[in-house]
Parts: sequence; C-alpha cells; structure tokens
Amino acid sequence: MIRWNNDYNHGAHPAVLQALSDTNNNSYGGYGLDEYCEAAALEIKKYLGGADADIHFMVGGTQVNFTVIAAALRPFESVISADGGHINSHETGAVENTGHKIHALKSVNGKITAEQIKAEAQIFCDSGTKEHITQPKLVYISFPTEFGTIYSKAELEAIRQVCDQYKLYLMVDGARMGYGLASPENDVTLADLARLADVFYIGGTKCGTLFGETVVIVNDDLKPNFRSYIKQNGGMLAKGWLLGLQFHTLFKDGLYFDITGQAMDGAMKIKKAFAEKGIPFYIDSPTNQQFPILTEGQKNKLAEKHIFEYQMKLEDGRHCVRFCTAWSTRPEDVDVLLADIAAL
Amino acid sequence: MIRWNNDYNHGAHPAVLQALSDTNNNSYGGYGLDEYCEAAALEIKKYLGGADADIHFMVGGTQVNFTVIAAALRPFESVISADGGHINSHETGAVENTGHKIHALKSVNGKITAEQIKAEAQIFCDSGTKEHITQPKLVYISFPTEFGTIYSKAELEAIRQVCDQYKLYLMVDGARMGYGLASPENDVTLADLARLADVFYIGGTKCGTLFGETVVIVNDDLKPNFRSYIKQNGGMLAKGWLLGLQFHTLFKDGLYFDITGQAMDGAMKIKKAFAEKGIPFYIDSPTNQQFPILTEGQKNKLAEKHIFEYQMKLEDGRHCVRFCTAWSTRPEDVDVLLADIAAL
Amino acid sequence: MIRWNNDYNHGAHPAVLQALSDTNNNSYGGYGLDEYCEAAALEIKKYLGGADADIHFMVGGTQVNFTVIAAALRPFESVISADGGHINSHETGAVENTGHKIHALKSVNGKITAEQIKAEAQIFCDSGTKEHITQPKLVYISFPTEFGTIYSKAELEAIRQVCDQYKLYLMVDGARMGYGLASPENDVTLADLARLADVFYIGGTKCGTLFGETVVIVNDDLKPNFRSYIKQNGGMLAKGWLLGLQFHTLFKDGLYFDITGQAMDGAMKIKKAFAEKGIPFYIDSPTNQQFPILTEGQKNKLAEKHIFEYQMKLEDGRHCVRFCTAWSTRPEDVDVLLADIAAL
Amino acid sequence: MIRWNNDYNHGAHPAVLQALSDTNNNSYGGYGLDEYCEAAALEIKKYLGGADADIHFMVGGTQVNFTVIAAALRPFESVISADGGHINSHETGAVENTGHKIHALKSVNGKITAEQIKAEAQIFCDSGTKEHITQPKLVYISFPTEFGTIYSKAELEAIRQVCDQYKLYLMVDGARMGYGLASPENDVTLADLARLADVFYIGGTKCGTLFGETVVIVNDDLKPNFRSYIKQNGGMLAKGWLLGLQFHTLFKDGLYFDITGQAMDGAMKIKKAFAEKGIPFYIDSPTNQQFPILTEGQKNKLAEKHIFEYQMKLEDGRHCVRFCTAWSTRPEDVDVLLADIAAL
Repeated sequence: MIRWNNDYNHGAHPAVLQALSDTNNNSYGGYGLDEYCEAAALEIKKYLGGADADIHFMVGGTQVNFTVIAAALRPFESVISADGGHINSHETGAVENTGHKIHALKSVNGKITAEQIKAEAQIFCDSGTKEHITQPKLVYISFPTEFGTIYSKAELEAIRQVCDQYKLYLMVDGARMGYGLASPENDVTLADLARLADVFYIGGTKCGTLFGETVVIVNDDLKPNFRSYIKQNGGMLAKGWLLGLQFHTLFKDGLYFDITGQAMDGAMKIKKAFAEKGIPFYIDSPTNQQFPILTEGQKNKLAEKHIFEYQMKLEDGRHCVRFCTAWSTRPEDVDVLLADIAAL
Repeated sequence: MIRWNNDYNHGAHPAVLQALSDTNNNSYGGYGLDEYCEAAALEIKKYLGGADADIHFMVGGTQVNFTVIAAALRPFESVISADGGHINSHETGAVENTGHKIHALKSVNGKITAEQIKAEAQIFCDSGTKEHITQPKLVYISFPTEFGTIYSKAELEAIRQVCDQYKLYLMVDGARMGYGLASPENDVTLADLARLADVFYIGGTKCGTLFGETVVIVNDDLKPNFRSYIKQNGGMLAKGWLLGLQFHTLFKDGLYFDITGQAMDGAMKIKKAFAEKGIPFYIDSPTNQQFPILTEGQKNKLAEKHIFEYQMKLEDGRHCVRFCTAWSTRPEDVDVLLADIAAL
Repeated sequence: MIRWNNDYNHGAHPAVLQALSDTNNNSYGGYGLDEYCEAAALEIKKYLGGADADIHFMVGGTQVNFTVIAAALRPFESVISADGGHINSHETGAVENTGHKIHALKSVNGKITAEQIKAEAQIFCDSGTKEHITQPKLVYISFPTEFGTIYSKAELEAIRQVCDQYKLYLMVDGARMGYGLASPENDVTLADLARLADVFYIGGTKCGTLFGETVVIVNDDLKPNFRSYIKQNGGMLAKGWLLGLQFHTLFKDGLYFDITGQAMDGAMKIKKAFAEKGIPFYIDSPTNQQFPILTEGQKNKLAEKHIFEYQMKLEDGRHCVRFCTAWSTRPEDVDVLLADIAAL
Repeated sequence: MIRWNNDYNHGAHPAVLQALSDTNNNSYGGYGLDEYCEAAALEIKKYLGGADADIHFMVGGTQVNFTVIAAALRPFESVISADGGHINSHETGAVENTGHKIHALKSVNGKITAEQIKAEAQIFCDSGTKEHITQPKLVYISFPTEFGTIYSKAELEAIRQVCDQYKLYLMVDGARMGYGLASPENDVTLADLARLADVFYIGGTKCGTLFGETVVIVNDDLKPNFRSYIKQNGGMLAKGWLLGLQFHTLFKDGLYFDITGQAMDGAMKIKKAFAEKGIPFYIDSPTNQQFPILTEGQKNKLAEKHIFEYQMKLEDGRHCVRFCTAWSTRPEDVDVLLADIAAL
C-alpha cells in the first residue's frame, strides 16, 4: 500500500538523518544556544531579503501558534482567522486556552480577504462600547491554507495594508510553506513574507525534517522575551541543536526547496491525471494536497493499492478525498498512482 | 427627558432601599454567610418546584457567566451559544479569558434551536480526531434573549433532550428573567427552569435591585466548591447580606413578579402604539425591550422628549432603535410616550 | 453582643445611604460613565498632589487585585508580595488563576523591605538562564497590611527606589487605607502614594461605603484599556454611578477621613486599655486592627458581651484574637469594651 | 574538552539512532496512533507490576508537567512541591500559567517529607474559610530530585499514605528516572512507582533518546481525554511514532537500564575519587549528578580539560559545581577525569 493520506507519515530526508548521525557523538549547549541553531538561522536569513529577523526553532505547529499568540496579545485582544484556520478547527482550542477569542471569518477555499479583515476590524472601531468587546489585534492566515490554496502577493499586500491601517499583526502559519513556495501558481517568496508579515514560520515536519518549525519574527515588538514564552509553553527542546541541525541541513544548499519542489511536481501530475479523467475537485488546489471527488467505484478501486484520506460524503453520494504528496513521495509511486487513475 | 435607553438606569425599588435603610445599623456575618442570604434562598426555592438547588448571590451578570463556565468545564471543553449571546458579543471575551472556546451558532431573533445544538454536538461525536477539537459541554442561552425574545417551554424541553443525549449542561442567563416570566406570550416558570436547566440565574440588576444576580444550581455535579469559584473570580461580596437582603425583599411577597409585570404592561402598550401607527419592528419582541424601526423624522420627533438606544441604520435609511421599560418605569411616562407615538 | 470581629459587618455611613436615597428616582448612564463617577474622581484627585491619575471604581478588593495584575503583566512576568499579602493568602489563588506566579517573601508583621525586594529581583538579574524563570515585574504591598501595620514614608521611598532600579511596578492594596492614613504613627499621604506607587486603591467597603474600591492609576503604561480589563474580569458594575456616588459623598467634604479617624481613636483607646492591663499584643498594630493575647479566662470573659475574631492558639495555651474598630463603631460600644477590659 | 555540564548534551544512543534509520523509509499513522507507540507501551508495562496504566509519549518534561497538572486540577486546586522542584524553579511559571498556585515547601537536599505535605494539607482542612484559599490537590516530587537525591520506598509509602488521607494526587517527575533506579542506594522500582504514584513519567531526553518522555497514568480519574490535553498544550507530535520507536528500542531488551546503570558506575567512581581526595560535596547525591565543592585552584585545574556546570560561590570563597554523567559518558573520559581528580 502506498500512503498519500498526509504529508507527515515518513521520518526525515536522508540528508537530515545523516546529519543527525554524523553529529551524534558530539556534545552541544542546550536549549537552542548552540552552533547549529546559529548557523541555521544565518542560512535562513539569506532568504529573507535582508530583514532583521529573530529566528527561533520550535517542535510543532500548534505549539508555535499558541505561543506566538500568547506572546503577542494582551488579555482583551483577539485573533482574526479563517473559519477553517488550523487554530480554529484543529488545535483543541489551544488559542482560547491561552485566553484569547478567535473571530472566525467565513473563508472561501480556506482563504480570507483583506476586505473581510477590514470589515471585522471596523466593527470594533465603530463600536461605541469598545470596552465590552475584544479588540482584534492579530490576523492569522496559513500559507498554503489547510485546503491547499495559496495567497497571491497582491492579496497579501492588500491584507498588509489593512493590518497597517488597523494596527493588526499579521501571522502566517507556514506548516506547508515549502509546497506553497514551489507551487506553479505562486508568486510569493520568503523575502515577501518577511516584508509583509510580522511573524511567520517555515514548516519542517511536513517538509523534510523529523520534526520542527522555524519561527521568523520580523516585528521588533514581538521579539523581546520570546524565549521565555517558548519555555513557559513547553516548546524549548533541551537538545535544541537537533532542530538547528535539521534546518541547517535543509537550507544550507537549498535542499528544502528541491524536495518540496519535487513533491509539487508529483502533485501536479496527479492533479492533471484526475482532470484528464474528468474527475472534478472539491477545491482547486495548486499545492501538494489534492481533493478529487470520486465515485464509490473509483474510491474503492484506488483504495486497493493506495491509502488516502477520507474527507466527506457529498450529497449526491460521491466522496471527497485527499491525496497528499510530500518530500518523501517516490517518483515510482507517483507513476503507479497515475496509471491507476488512468485506468479508472 | 425620559430614559428608555436601557433597564438599568435607576437605583432600586423603594422597598429594597427601605430594607437597606432599616438594617443599616445592624451587623452581619460576611461573605454571604448571613441570615438574609439564607432567608432569600428559602423564598426563592418556593418557586423552584421542589428542586434541590444551591442558591448563590453574585454581583453582576458577566461575573456569573464566566464563573459558572469556569467552574463547570474542563480545559478541553467548550460552550455552545447563540452568536448574539451576551457571552459571545458583549463581555470582552471573558469566557475565552477563562480558557474556553465558544461555538457561536447563527441565531434567529437571538434564539438557537435544539436542532442546531444537536448538529453542533454531533460534529464532535462524528469526528474521527476528537482530541484535535474541543468538546462542547455547556449550552448557554438567555431568557429572555438579548433581543427580547423568549423560548417556549416546548423549545426548552427540546433543548433539554438534546443536552441529555449529548451530556451537555444547560445554562440560562436570566439577567432579564422577570420580564420574560411576565410576558403575555410566556409559558415557562421558574420551576420549569429548575427542571430543565442545570444552572440558571435570576437577574436583580435589571429587575429591581441596586445590583445582584441569584444563581440557582440544580445539577449536583456543579454544586461542590462553587463558593471557591465565586471567591477566585472576584464575585464574593464582603457584605454579602446586601445581596440576600435585596432578593429577600423582592421575593418574600412576590414583589419581583409585580414590578416586572408592571414593566411588561407598559412595554406591551408601547408595542401596540407603534403597531397601530403602522411602525414596524426589527424583531417581534414579547418582553420589555422593543425594537421599532423609525424614519428619520419619527426618530427626531421622539428624541425631543425621550432618550432611547440607537441600534443601527437600515439599508433604506430608516433607524432601528430600542425602547426599554423596567421596574422603574412610571405609568405617567408611558402615557407621555404613548401620546407622542400617536402624534407621529 | 457587640461585633468587633471585622470592619465590614455594617452597611454604609448614613450620609452614603442618604445619597443613595436622594438619587434613587434619577436615571444615569451605565457602566461608570456618569456624572457622579466624574465628580468623585475630581474630589479624590484633590488629594493626589496634582498627579495625573486615572480613577476607576470597582466593586471589591480581590477583583481589583487580580484585574490590575492581569492588566499590568505579560505572561512570563510575576509578582513580589509579602507571604501574608492578601493576594497570596486569602484570595483563592486569583492571581495565579490569571496565570502569574507570586514570589512570597517572608514578612515581619506583614511588611517586606526594600532589601528583600531587591534581593528577589536580583536573583532574576543574576540568572544565567533568565528564560527558565519568571521575571518579577510588580511589587504588591498593603497599606495598612493585613496585620494592621503600616509602611513609613521612608520605607515606601526605599521600595520605590528599588522598583525604579529593577523596573518594577509598585501596587498598593488600600482596602483599609483610611485607617492607615489616620494612624497616629503614619507619615504617608495619598499624595505620597500617588508619587510613589504606580497604582493603588482606596478602600470603601471597610471605610464607609456599602461596597466599592477606588483604583488610582498613576503610571501611564497602566492606563490604556483598563476599562476593557474591568469588564473582562467582571468588575464593571452596570449601575456604576452607585460607586461614584458613594465615594463622592465620602470625599467631597473629607468625611472619609473623619470617620476612619474616629475609628482610629477608638482603636487606640482599646489598645491602651489592653496595655494598661498588662495584656500583650501578638503584633504591635498602629491601626484599627488590634491583636491582643488573652488568657482562656480573659477570652471567655470578654466573649460574654463582645464578638471578636479568633486568630490562633499560642504554644503556651493563650489565645491571639482580633478586635477591629471601624467607621461604624459607636463610641458607647468602645466605652463598654474599655470598661470590660479594665475589669479583667 | 570533555562535557560533564549536563546529561542532555549528546544526541541518542546508537541503537536509537539505528532504529530511526531502519524505519525511515516506512510510513506510519500520525499523532501517536501507530504500531511503535503501541509496542513501546507494552514493553514498558512489563515493568509496572501489572498496573492498569495508560501510556502516552510526549516531547519534553516541562510540557509533561504542566499538561498533567492542567488535566488533573480544577481551577481552585493547587500543587504542593519542593521549593527546588523543577516546576517551581525552572519552568518559567508554566504551572501558574495554567492557573494553579504552587505551595513551595522548604526542601532538604531537594526532598520534602510526608510530614511536611501533611502539615500543608492540614492547613486547608483546618481553615474556617476554605473558599478563600486554594485546595492542595496534587503533590509533585522528582525522582531523582533536581539535586540528585532519591526518595526511599519507605519515604514514598509515607507520602502515599498522606496523599490517600488528604485525597491528593501524587505525581513523580522522572526526567532522570533511569539514574535514580540504577543508584546503589535505591530500593524503588517502576512497579513501586506504579503502585504508589497516580501519574509519573520516565525520562528519555536525559536517558538515551533524542527527546521524549513516557507518561504513565495509573489513576483512572486522570486517564480520560488525556490526548485532548496533550494536543491542546502543544505536546502531540505529528510523527508520534518517533517517540514510540525510541522508547521501544530502549525498553524491549532493557537497554534503558543498562545505559543508565553504566552512567551510574561512572558517577560513583567520580564521587569516590573526589571523596578520596578529601573534597567535600554540597549535597550527598547517590545518582548521576555530583556536586563537589572545589577551591579556586581545583576548579581552574579541572577546567583545563573538563566542562562542568557552575552552581554557586560559597561564603568561604569555594565553588560548588556540578559534574553529570549520562548514558553517553565514555568510560575513557571517566578515566581521564579520575586521573585529573587524583592529581589535584
């Protein structure tokens, strides 16, 4: 059976594993104060267009999300998010657990617009009883979104403009960053994100590491004491160099972009194969997650050799499912799938 | 100028003030452990149909709401509320500040249905990844709602049935309880609430006291240590007898029902007067809050003698406003308003 | 029986009650936005030596304490307090419930010193692993303390100096402020507190009102959005004018100082009576709380006519008890007690 | 230079790394629902004396500590800990950040006694105003302690008895569990802990894995929904099998005990070497952390080849330092250190 159910079902890219092996007999300073964290930060900064950013390495995405939000907001401030945003839909209320309300905006294909954000922020501004409601202070978006879609540079710039106007922080969840950057439809770079966002992160868990996310803090207001927040929220890995080492391996020669790019090639071939077969998509995704709508027969046929994620049953009885490629996807497995789709 | 803008713009019913005056030279035990709190609880229990309830007196509604919810829920549990519910729209994120997510259901005239609650609870039950989402555990409704509407006994029974099925607590915010009970359209009693809800409160602030809300805890699971929660959340009044005394005054001879009933008479006359003038309502409210839709001219004319609350401008340029009666509304003021409406 | 057990066992000073009565037929704006809150703030500011302070009225002391601390601190910051400080010993962990650690310093007679505060703050500064510990950010002291003692101006100035050096906020809990100011041993004024503290409050509950505390925010950093914090933490009284009105009554002609001064006269007479009888004190208190150490016989004899608070049994079998005077203490009751002490 | 500064400065035991390598091309279910987590749990249960325990794998110790405590306690409940307990001294207030007070008891060599716990619990029981103070509900101890000392079986049984008497949960932080179990002075087994504690964890980070802690929940009351708490608090690793796999490797053949036992041999040799040289210890530790007191000269001499952790300067000018052995300590390095100590 070939697994397409998600993009975190394999260990690490061999180069990452090799690096862990090569350094296993060495000793390092703890808690992220080591030469690999430092070196990885330098490599990553090369992609940030000269932004003066603080770089931190944390273990997982949920942890990053609530830690950044807990660090950024005062108790009466709140978060604007797409309703399908990971923090709103799939993190067991971790943000509310830190005390903050989420304003969940109705999203289209996982995305929200500058206009929607502006309208929500304006409600607070127009309120005659401001002290009775929370003040939106941070906009959380995902790139790519939970549904595989991506924001264009123009869309991000429009959102940035609203954020500036309403003094909102812009936070970008980049758990699948690599796949977004490698999308044929993408026109956004890490340097753009460093220019447009106040804080964002570059996912490792789904993009080649065993685990780990790189947090990039651009806004000076969010930098002080961030290590205290990491520690308080359980995100400070004792052997922090394991995080730095993995990201160093992926960024020192651009491997991060190569392997996510290869995954995107596979995804686009699969997308094309479904389309050529006349199979529609629930969402038109330009990244590594594809959401074809299968008949009962198609679903069962593909399930003979492939593991994919069930999303939901449509009203007409057909099934929306998810196929993910990843850095770990083997070309030969893509070929098998392409043949099986063609044979439906 | 006559104030109709809200139902908390006057002090207390004269009998309440007299009771405060009569007892001012006496001394009492602190923190709600006194003879008046005890006596008031006994009086209120007479209306609860024999329910074995714990009675607590707290200062204000927001305080009651977040204290009850903090006491009732575990960190991964969440609240189901109407989107217009006071906790979701007008309490500065106090519930989220205690760590709990609110599932805000789209309400019609401030009300949500058993079917909606069931559908939301079912999402959790159907989830294959329950640990990634919060578990709805408490349903919060207001009686009357923030828009003056009331739930019928049949509606509450249907909600209770869903709560039983999904092991949800039912909490009823009764900040305006007296006006709901006195509505000509109402078929719900305090005894019904004691039978159908797990916890509810009977508002004093808007119904005749200087301040204060009576919390009625029916479900045994919610009773232990509630005084600790009151104290921890700043709701334990040092001179607790002031609360007991006020409620004792209102309940020992049914004064609570008389004065809110009189307010309802006024409200119904005002409602009829607007209707007879062909003036429509934004919401058809059977309680003390009325939401007529006025033209610019009507609004300005009434504003010459009356203070009322502006709600919003409609797309056609007309204005939705709120007129509230209260226990403090004088019949002669109602007459003035009726005449002014008739003269529009 | 005459109650000396605490200083919150009577309603309000007659003038306060009269003011409530006089205004009961008037209507006011809600939530503290009314003419009496404004007027009371102006009267209180007259005592603040020209400090540019924000004045807020809240219902109770616990509520003030955790609301101010929640508003002032970031999640990784902590509070320095005497171990006997009310927030550490008698508020059900309300401060920790907002997420903040309390560093409880060993106090002598309820007081802590500038040296102790400095030493605690220095631990953080000296730490090589700051992100692993909380950063002390606010010093909480009570004036008078929970044991009736008071800080001298020199002591407060020394504490202020340490606070400046270590960038700590100084918060003064003034639940019994009036009795501290009226102490024959006191050399501190409200103007001194406005100069030396960042935020403090002037107690009403124990000093003549039915309830209510006046929060004085001096430090500009603590002023923004404080009303949002009040609302979020359940401290915003719907009929806020009731608070303003009570404090206006007490401060417009200095009544606050007269009635607490009279209570202090009584306390000093009682203190002298015990001393003349050779009865020792557990703590040498210069304010309205007196802690004599009684033999079993003395205790039982006084208990025939007087209610006082039991504190603890000493190792030698004697009993430490508390006698409180208050604004409500009648001179004739003091005379009875004096005679009964003399007759021991 | 040879590092003795801590026990988390090397990657993983070679067998662990090999296992990661061997499985790197396989795919697994996410979030700890995989065959390795299952298999590891089975292996660990073999050591638990038949206890019906729930086993969970989490990333780090701070995370375990606050997640377990957040899951176990209601808002008004508090934790009893040694003052030097990791949660009280080195986790940035993470427990308070979840809303709970810590009662920090004065410890001797990092340990607290059953009598101390009883006395603290009794304060609450004796209180006449229980709702004004927090209720101790969980006792947190470390095995070994942060100072290398261990509790005897008799001491743990006495603590258990107090916990039973006062309905307290007993939680054991086992970040260095392997070194405690392997101590020549130890008489406690994992089966004893499963019998005496309600919840404890077995450290991996300091005992052979790259990272990871095994949480063992014995008390049925603490089992429900623990995965929700893990997720909400950011402790659910997407690639959870990495945790299961590492612990499976260490426990399937007892490797965990071998490698921590070998570290203990080294530690005991080093301890003996210091003692034979007449060098005293700050604490008499029977585990892998040794705290010799060195003169300036001794310290400088050893620092030529060895990295160790500075603890503090004593009043007489001498220096307390820490030498740690670990699973990664090489016998030849121990020999070098022994020779260098002998040559002092």
